Amino acid sequence: MKVKRFLSLGVAALTTLVSWSCNRASAEQARIPVVRLAELEIDPTQLETYKAALREEIEASVRAEPGVLSLYAVSVKSDPTRVRLFEMYADSNAYDAHIASPHFVKYKTATKAMVKSLTLTETVPLSLGTKRSEILGAYVTLK
Amino acid sequence: MKVKRFLSLGVAALTTLVSWSCNRASAEQARIPVVRLAELEIDPTQLETYKAALREEIEASVRAEPGVLSLYAVSVKSDPTRVRLFEMYADSNAYDAHIASPHFVKYKTATKAMVKSLTLTETVPLSLGTKRSEILGAYVTLK
Repeated sequence: MKVKRFLSLGVAALTTLVSWSCNRASAEQARIPVVRLAELEIDPTQLETYKAALREEIEASVRAEPGVLSLYAVSVKSDPTRVRLFEMYADSNAYDAHIASPHFVKYKTATKAMVKSLTLTETVPLSLGTKRSEILGAYVTLK
Repeated sequence: MKVKRFLSLGVAALTTLVSWSCNRASAEQARIPVVRLAELEIDPTQLETYKAALREEIEASVRAEPGVLSLYAVSVKSDPTRVRLFEMYADSNAYDAHIASPHFVKYKTATKAMVKSLTLTETVPLSLGTKRSEILGAYVTLK
């Protein structure tokens, strides 16, 4: 009987320890954002339409989705048809939710024929240094 | 005499107008951050030393320089020796100040022999969507 009790106490302690470790690990993991890079080449005849659709999608995503931390879109100075995106999500669930969101699906469908090429790069964040500057409020849209 | 007075009033009015326009233009310009992309290839035998130097430089820059808005460093998941930087400065003066700062010069000198290649891309920001999330305080360093 004593052995049984000892064993069951041991199992309970082990379960608590494993559960604590898992929670701790997932809490730490949740603090590491998912960062994805995208390189796009846009049909020059549809560039302005594409940029308008992209801006709309970024504004909607940052406003509506709690897990979308940052969506930065820039074009290469020497060739405006080359667009680069730096995307930061709270975690992989936030990323999955973003891909399934109506504004993303709308953007993806509307711009399908405008995008000549798309290269996605999965990354491992090394250091994400940022200020909470007044210059970057909810979003900065540059027209 | 009247003509002279009229002319001098005209010049004064014109000067005020030009000065107002310039101030307005520079104030608007100041709200558009300078975004620079960098792609680096690091000597694999010195990768950990390089990453430590990069993190130190990012933390010092974001902490000490008012015009450094964000310095994001990630590595490519499929090849950790390929590092990508997304750099955001308040304006071109802030960028110039950063390049001349002691911590940047220290990083640049210390990592010279570790960087196998460096490609810089000047950009035009299209939309910089971001949240002031708790997950991104002063800086997030991931070790």
